[in-house]
Amino acid sequence: MSGPSPDILQTASQATPRCGAFFGMEKRYLILAEEKSADPHYGKTARGVLRYSPHPTVAILDSTRAGETRDGIPVVGTVDDALCFNPTTALVGVATQGGRFPPAWRELIRSCVAKGLDVENGLHEFLTDDAELVELAARHQVELRDLRKPPDGLNVPTGENLELEARVVLTIGSDCAIGKMTVSLELDREAQRRGLRSVFVPTGQTGIAIAGWGISVDAVVSDFLAGAAERLVVEGAERGDLLWVEGQGALLHPAYSGVTLGLMHGSAPHAYVLCDQAGATTIEGFPEHAIPPLSELVELHERASLPARPARVACIAVNTSSLGEAEARAAVAEAEEETGLPADDPVRFGAGKLLDAVLLRTGTVGAER
Amino acid sequence: MSGPSPDILQTASQATPRCGAFFGMEKRYLILAEEKSADPHYGKTARGVLRYSPHPTVAILDSTRAGETRDGIPVVGTVDDALCFNPTTALVGVATQGGRFPPAWRELIRSCVAKGLDVENGLHEFLTDDAELVELAARHQVELRDLRKPPDGLNVPTGENLELEARVVLTIGSDCAIGKMTVSLELDREAQRRGLRSVFVPTGQTGIAIAGWGISVDAVVSDFLAGAAERLVVEGAERGDLLWVEGQGALLHPAYSGVTLGLMHGSAPHAYVLCDQAGATTIEGFPEHAIPPLSELVELHERASLPARPARVACIAVNTSSLGEAEARAAVAEAEEETGLPADDPVRFGAGKLLDAVLLRTGTVGAER
Repeated sequence: MSGPSPDILQTASQATPRCGAFFGMEKRYLILAEEKSADPHYGKTARGVLRYSPHPTVAILDSTRAGETRDGIPVVGTVDDALCFNPTTALVGVATQGGRFPPAWRELIRSCVAKGLDVENGLHEFLTDDAELVELAARHQVELRDLRKPPDGLNVPTGENLELEARVVLTIGSDCAIGKMTVSLELDREAQRRGLRSVFVPTGQTGIAIAGWGISVDAVVSDFLAGAAERLVVEGAERGDLLWVEGQGALLHPAYSGVTLGLMHGSAPHAYVLCDQAGATTIEGFPEHAIPPLSELVELHERASLPARPARVACIAVNTSSLGEAEARAAVAEAEEETGLPADDPVRFGAGKLLDAVLLRTGTVGAER
Repeated sequence: MSGPSPDILQTASQATPRCGAFFGMEKRYLILAEEKSADPHYGKTARGVLRYSPHPTVAILDSTRAGETRDGIPVVGTVDDALCFNPTTALVGVATQGGRFPPAWRELIRSCVAKGLDVENGLHEFLTDDAELVELAARHQVELRDLRKPPDGLNVPTGENLELEARVVLTIGSDCAIGKMTVSLELDREAQRRGLRSVFVPTGQTGIAIAGWGISVDAVVSDFLAGAAERLVVEGAERGDLLWVEGQGALLHPAYSGVTLGLMHGSAPHAYVLCDQAGATTIEGFPEHAIPPLSELVELHERASLPARPARVACIAVNTSSLGEAEARAAVAEAEEETGLPADDPVRFGAGKLLDAVLLRTGTVGAER
């Protein structure tokens, strides 16, 4: 049994600055999005880091869009062009289904390493398994960080997940990639604003890049999934009293449901926040799989909770990003009516209402410290 | 994407006979159960192989019980003593929680290799990752087979699992280690007896040792769990028309539920056989986790099925091994009354009744060919 998951941000300060005028500077991201920066899905990792990382993104690399900007960040065509913006760290910001590398990318990553950039990689294929790349990184004194590489010594849960004093809240969803991580982060921020000892608990590569610790539970051997989730809440409880566990997958997702249920049982939450994408009727990428009504999903998740830790859905987080203001308010109202639970879009309208619902459900005192 | 999972039995015939008079002989197992042969749990792998493997077990190694017999098989104290019985293959027959090696075992395995035995290993730790052991095996011309090592090229499901012509039946259960594999094997045998093109689909190390193919889904990276299950039914459908997929874990098991749900969704069964251990009220090894009533489990599994492949529980398989005959019949009757479904103990009373229920539920013609 090894220690807690590594605090990867701690290693950032050890990185030697390599170019430009900003010696001693902190981590500055170059996001690799070759041929992908216009793809709405490159956004899952990239947008999460842009929006929530304490470290700035200074450039996005995509030779097919060089000269444009994305979310105000310059898009460059080559690693050399990116160097003008003094990045320290290249981030593999493409979330491919199944998490494999586009083959042409290895050359791009070699180029980043050769130019003195650390590389953070969120895919299932590990840079540190590539002996040639490891040798190249050593030669250029840069770090390769595989965000999804599981820590050593994982095993099945010990039962400690049921003994923590912290309150645990897990985001669940009607589909993948609809904002479970974002909702957890927004609720964490709002709780911190209110003075609560609130902690975001990262369970995937983007969350790990943002928070600097965590385990990518989808990369863990299936038998140790719940054990990995338990380890995360045990570590989270050392960091605070109110834990927002980043959800993964969806309970009725044809590919990723196992991860969802293992996380539900291993993190042993006291309450859920159910995330939904307004207007979606089928699982994205799997059009033959219908999404059941929200009320059915509420009941299914509650019934699939461990009898030893029955958890209830506290509220519904509705992703209304594709809608206008009036339609967004209507979608929120519709979710409330269907489920009888408080609903809101915490990104668009603020996380206060959902936080109130969670604090009520978990019996957490919501006052300032 | 690599090919189908390897047919490990095919390699058995390549093994060179090493001792005794039986040159050219087929695989003969020595089951390693040091300090464990009296443990009811050593039985999960060992008993499965004893009962269902086409290959005989000639000895069991346990120095604390040398001279006794187990299920009619001699227990020996050393590898040298075992050699009198002409084994060809040592099987690591201990199922530890989390699947780790008892440390002292490495020496025992080295000894088997040095005496010319192939080794089949069902734990999460792989013999083929141990360079010294690999070198020793090469020197002695024996094979190391890690039954749980996932094949290369796994990924998420493609949707092919919904397009197969074969009928797929998955065993599910109220707990682990209560006989899901056994029930699948008994139903497969009964279906074959009736002339159906029936196939047992192995999803764990013991099933793989017995059937000579398969993937141990609990050892697969979580993201690829459903994809591995899909690959198994696709391969199963090349072997026959009626697939009995070996279930894993339990949907409300605090450690292994993720594996269960990934297998449920990836294998996309048409029907379930729900396995229960008569008299059990809590999850074994996790006494704080109560087992819900059977009727609740029936409903929960049905509702957790993919909407694109709604599966129903066809019948209940009751493990009555701890009961006398009258109590066993009462337990079966009780399961029928509670669920309204046909129930039986297929090991004790034959699998015919449960098979009839499955054939009815799946619309499979049950007549002789």
